[in-house]
Amino acid sequence: MDPDVAFAVWSGERAQRVEGVLERLLAPAAGARELHEAMRYAVLGGGKRVRALLAYASGELCDAEPDAVDAVAASVELIHAYSLVHDDLPCMDDDVLRRGNPTCHVAFGEATALLAGDALQSLAFEALARGARASVAQAALLAHAAGASGMAGGQAIDLASAGKRLDLAELEQMHALKTGALIRAAVHLGAECGRALTRGETGALERYAVATGLAFQVIDDILDVEGTTQSLGKTAGKDVRQGKPTYVSLKGLEAARRRVEALRGEARDALSPFGARARRLLEVSDWISQRRH
Amino acid sequence: MDPDVAFAVWSGERAQRVEGVLERLLAPAAGARELHEAMRYAVLGGGKRVRALLAYASGELCDAEPDAVDAVAASVELIHAYSLVHDDLPCMDDDVLRRGNPTCHVAFGEATALLAGDALQSLAFEALARGARASVAQAALLAHAAGASGMAGGQAIDLASAGKRLDLAELEQMHALKTGALIRAAVHLGAECGRALTRGETGALERYAVATGLAFQVIDDILDVEGTTQSLGKTAGKDVRQGKPTYVSLKGLEAARRRVEALRGEARDALSPFGARARRLLEVSDWISQRRH
Repeated sequence: MDPDVAFAVWSGERAQRVEGVLERLLAPAAGARELHEAMRYAVLGGGKRVRALLAYASGELCDAEPDAVDAVAASVELIHAYSLVHDDLPCMDDDVLRRGNPTCHVAFGEATALLAGDALQSLAFEALARGARASVAQAALLAHAAGASGMAGGQAIDLASAGKRLDLAELEQMHALKTGALIRAAVHLGAECGRALTRGETGALERYAVATGLAFQVIDDILDVEGTTQSLGKTAGKDVRQGKPTYVSLKGLEAARRRVEALRGEARDALSPFGARARRLLEVSDWISQRRH
Repeated sequence: MDPDVAFAVWSGERAQRVEGVLERLLAPAAGARELHEAMRYAVLGGGKRVRALLAYASGELCDAEPDAVDAVAASVELIHAYSLVHDDLPCMDDDVLRRGNPTCHVAFGEATALLAGDALQSLAFEALARGARASVAQAALLAHAAGASGMAGGQAIDLASAGKRLDLAELEQMHALKTGALIRAAVHLGAECGRALTRGETGALERYAVATGLAFQVIDDILDVEGTTQSLGKTAGKDVRQGKPTYVSLKGLEAARRRVEALRGEARDALSPFGARARRLLEVSDWISQRRH
């Protein structure tokens, strides 16, 4: 099979798989009906599932069967989904469009969206803790990646940066927290579901994850300028209008594209010690570097 | 020593103890300074630490040393603190006063308060996962208590209930989730830090926790009517103004007081199989039933 087709088949199958896991986790419960609907709305039926794919690909590197990875794949998607719901709220980015649909607070009201995000974060830890290969080390890793020293911290720096001029190092530090921390967590959590890695191998995986996370964000900056609201399914050109520093505003489009290629190379180099076992991880980072939405 | 004095000494020592644990967890970090300040503001230097005291008392029942309980005591306080920050936001209760000070969003702005709450929830799970007696069962228990089937679900029902007439069963069901779930979690998490309980003992502890949680909330309803904003450190009379059903609006003050006494008796009866080992738990529920703020 053509490698691109094979990857499309694999990623489609894994995306469908995590969708099933999320669907089961979000089975309607007695009690707060509106809250459950908002949670399902925010999580199901959309998204590229980049973080879940990274977890499954990293699991394959460590000979973990997909069912051993399901819980961590779902947990990183739940954290991501909650962050989008809160990020879109009026007091944050105040956005009305997400994945081509009205944002959660537009559809359900602000209070319900706030609670839905809160409950999705709880559910992420519950899903992780009930997973087939659950460990307290995994829970600590995910919590650290989501919190003040990770994603939430990055969003706070992002917030404070509007209208300011960050230098490149500051910008990349913000990205390393805001999107990088959860992407790195997805890679390491997936690997922890399989055979133990040596310290050197874990270091190589970390270099892969750092490069891939940053490439993901630089592409995001490029697409914010080049993409249309329709192709992205979210409001295009928002960073520029909000005066937020981006890789593109700092270095220009061409430099941004070159940076993505360099990061793609770093990711590839980091994986070389693993040989063919790293095939899926390599494919995922190539796919991230070429995405158009 | 007079038993009341002995309890005051014990509870003061434990409250101070968990304050130290929280202080260490919230040591200022590099990165998002404003976010860290908001998190510290929301957590440190205030509150009755009811949930932490329940965890320590329950730990004593199971012969757990205080240092074995520290992590779970801090984690339930962090979940509680995050819920207050989000509950006070303009899109929720829109309150300006908490523990006698401006609420977090008044002091730091809405976006930072939102992120501080989010990061405090993450920190709760990180603290729990790094605890001396950490287990994935504990993480699952706390996550379930915080999420859609627990605290967040109860807040969603509370939200939907404004202006509606709930019957007593519906009101108690809402309270069982909104405040009861986390109080029950505190009791069970504390117990899990010590020697294993029999199924019957766990059932007895559950009955104690359910009665104590509901007593806590009925007292809250009474104080909302009887207390002053100054004595409570938060806005008094809010439930009535917001048209929220409470135990008092449904049954009257006298019936509410009788209900508290009945629940206090239920809590005492539930503990009787444990004998003297349950002394602290008994004292905590007595203290909760008599609190004036």
